[in-house]
Amino acid sequence: MANTDLVSLRVFSLNCWGIRYLSKHCPQRYAMIGEMLCKEEHDIVLLQEVWSEKDYLNLKKKLACSHPHSHYFKSGVIGSGLAMFSKHRIQDTFLFRYSLNGYPYMAHHGDWFGGKAVGMAILNLGSLTAHVYVTHLHAEYCREKDSYLPHRVVQAWELQQFIRHTSAGADVIILGGDLNMHPQDLGNRLLRTYTGLRDCYLETAKFDGCEDGITLIADNPFTSKKELVPFDKGIRIDYILIKGSSKTSIHCDVMRTTKGSVADSPFPYSDHEALTAELRLGSHVTADTADDGQAKNKDSAAGKLAELVDIVTEARTEVKVGIHCAERMRYTSARTGVMGLALLFLELAIAAVPWLALGAEQPFPRTSFYLLAALCFAILLTTFLLYVFYTMELKSLQGAEDQMRLALGSLQEKLRGFPVAQPHSALRGPPEGREPGAFAPEE
Amino acid sequence: MANTDLVSLRVFSLNCWGIRYLSKHCPQRYAMIGEMLCKEEHDIVLLQEVWSEKDYLNLKKKLACSHPHSHYFKSGVIGSGLAMFSKHRIQDTFLFRYSLNGYPYMAHHGDWFGGKAVGMAILNLGSLTAHVYVTHLHAEYCREKDSYLPHRVVQAWELQQFIRHTSAGADVIILGGDLNMHPQDLGNRLLRTYTGLRDCYLETAKFDGCEDGITLIADNPFTSKKELVPFDKGIRIDYILIKGSSKTSIHCDVMRTTKGSVADSPFPYSDHEALTAELRLGSHVTADTADDGQAKNKDSAAGKLAELVDIVTEARTEVKVGIHCAERMRYTSARTGVMGLALLFLELAIAAVPWLALGAEQPFPRTSFYLLAALCFAILLTTFLLYVFYTMELKSLQGAEDQMRLALGSLQEKLRGFPVAQPHSALRGPPEGREPGAFAPEE
Repeated sequence: MANTDLVSLRVFSLNCWGIRYLSKHCPQRYAMIGEMLCKEEHDIVLLQEVWSEKDYLNLKKKLACSHPHSHYFKSGVIGSGLAMFSKHRIQDTFLFRYSLNGYPYMAHHGDWFGGKAVGMAILNLGSLTAHVYVTHLHAEYCREKDSYLPHRVVQAWELQQFIRHTSAGADVIILGGDLNMHPQDLGNRLLRTYTGLRDCYLETAKFDGCEDGITLIADNPFTSKKELVPFDKGIRIDYILIKGSSKTSIHCDVMRTTKGSVADSPFPYSDHEALTAELRLGSHVTADTADDGQAKNKDSAAGKLAELVDIVTEARTEVKVGIHCAERMRYTSARTGVMGLALLFLELAIAAVPWLALGAEQPFPRTSFYLLAALCFAILLTTFLLYVFYTMELKSLQGAEDQMRLALGSLQEKLRGFPVAQPHSALRGPPEGREPGAFAPEE
Repeated sequence: MANTDLVSLRVFSLNCWGIRYLSKHCPQRYAMIGEMLCKEEHDIVLLQEVWSEKDYLNLKKKLACSHPHSHYFKSGVIGSGLAMFSKHRIQDTFLFRYSLNGYPYMAHHGDWFGGKAVGMAILNLGSLTAHVYVTHLHAEYCREKDSYLPHRVVQAWELQQFIRHTSAGADVIILGGDLNMHPQDLGNRLLRTYTGLRDCYLETAKFDGCEDGITLIADNPFTSKKELVPFDKGIRIDYILIKGSSKTSIHCDVMRTTKGSVADSPFPYSDHEALTAELRLGSHVTADTADDGQAKNKDSAAGKLAELVDIVTEARTEVKVGIHCAERMRYTSARTGVMGLALLFLELAIAAVPWLALGAEQPFPRTSFYLLAALCFAILLTTFLLYVFYTMELKSLQGAEDQMRLALGSLQEKLRGFPVAQPHSALRGPPEGREPGAFAPEE
């Protein structure tokens, strides 16, 4: 493909809700999805919640002709649930597993077992290189009291890091998936502002779908209306995001979502709506993609930078809240463990009295003795496992906070108008006049 | 720095063996390391096994003047042990935690708790961007029967993926660390061949250090000579690797290692030797860096590609061995769990007999009853946790194997001389004549 040519690209994204034996009409819905994909022949298909590898393999078989290239991203206990089908050859893949993803003891939520991650595939579109990302972040079970918010913010932070650092060689970047974040949620703003990714729904020339682009709608028979309160109609949490490069521009001409039902079918494809974006690739760098690389308009760049500083600061605050919670939980498990140990020693001491004072009567009924001992061991084991888990959670949160602080320092220095690139003479000279912690003024 | 200028850069790497209260003379050695670093003023210092954050903070304080910029990479239960100090501003950092890293129940080896990872920092050296990586792979405890080999191969695979995918925007790439692999080990060849990273020891103009560049030497008072058998003198497992770009060349002028003792000190810095590389950066792309980008010599490129195909195939075989082991271990834990459950049911059945047949004598002594029940529960819990763990291990191994298969397909297609970039007409047309599994001919 010559660079002067325009190329169109159709991208599809769907959270398949594919929990075998638990999700309603799972096999029938996979059959419907397979048929539709086979017929529609999108260039790139990004699927989430394909929890069973068997379902992926069935889809792969069905789409062998329309989408000869595919990849299933494996992670965690169950898998990442992420799958990708493509008409174009997948040259290379890479998986980044988020360091935080809920709690294993919240088994009814199940996120931890899924090993949530972001999968990347490098595709060659003629002479262009596309980096295509698919992801699924931790679900939001209660918006008012969202105990998973720090985890989701760290996931959004790691997602933007992963995309920024792995996309330097890309001509175009496409991200599709279920972000489990509303358009103006902190993690979403962080992702879009830091990476420069643009929301297809917001910039499409033509949109056909549900009001406000919502993708988890009240009209869908599989969604629980109660869980959507206070959003009567539904929420927008699935996205297709795009970004060009200095060489290549990318635009969304048409965006479509399903509307809760499928023609000639008794039920929809999933509890989420499916997204389709018709993208146009070109070699002209137009005004709205120029800010991908070097901003032409300095004022606007400074504005964006200031916005980014605010967002990262907000994210850092949220992560600090998470650190506080994790510290408290770790402390609680340590204290409970110590109490369990004290109880065990107390029991042993009481039991030892008649043993030492020969002839004295055994004050402990045997049944109670063994039950109490078992309880003590159970407490010790559980609190030990929890302590290890919370320590890992704490390390990940602290790590993210450290990275945010460092990034803030760099951003603020840029914002102050200091030259980011150091002068040559500074290279081997002593770093005079620069204070050790100067890049982290907030600490 | 103008591109025509030459810049020198001194890089230091050391595995600090910093296990508080367990490593010998830990505080004294940290004091020695701090003093030496403060005096030597290397541009970049890459440390491994800095297990305690307190030790990192002490070092940071001590190096505040010589190395105003630093980062400590947090991960796992204890931490990744990775730290970086720099004279040049660290613009951004990113951490990739390896998906596999030993077994939690091998507590005496301790690797699992460390959360081994590769840390990246982006540094601005004048107008050049350097991507600096520091890592520490899983230790090798028994070379003859190395049960961790599949894990280390997957780590090497993920390391090369991480470096390849995050270094597209870099002018120079520097990797330092304890790879726990001999120079010709599979993971080492995989890393070097796939990324194009060059070993400073092999290409330095001047070397001053131990024979054969060994970094774990028999003469070091902290190393156990028994563990080094059959390598009487020692082994080389610590490295500084470098790579330039199409714009910038990088060469190693001088390479030094410590030789087991430090002048005026009763003991060395660590059980590993410290590495120092004096690097020279330039704008001329000379013959030996030309193959970083587009190979000028097609024959040599084809040869390298064929070598890479062989290495990836070898790695894939090793990972398959790991998959086989993990499957067997998972099966064993499942079988043991089922036996524990059967035992529990049997016990309950025996106990229920007199309860159902009123008047019959209780055949079970109470003590044995409770002890047996506790044993059954312990078996069930342990086998459940092991089953979950082995499932995760299996998923990671299978994921790596999938990625290797896909990469092999791409490499083999390149090798066959097929154009990698598809013709324009193929973009929106049906993928005729291309078989679904054509990119994975080995499957």
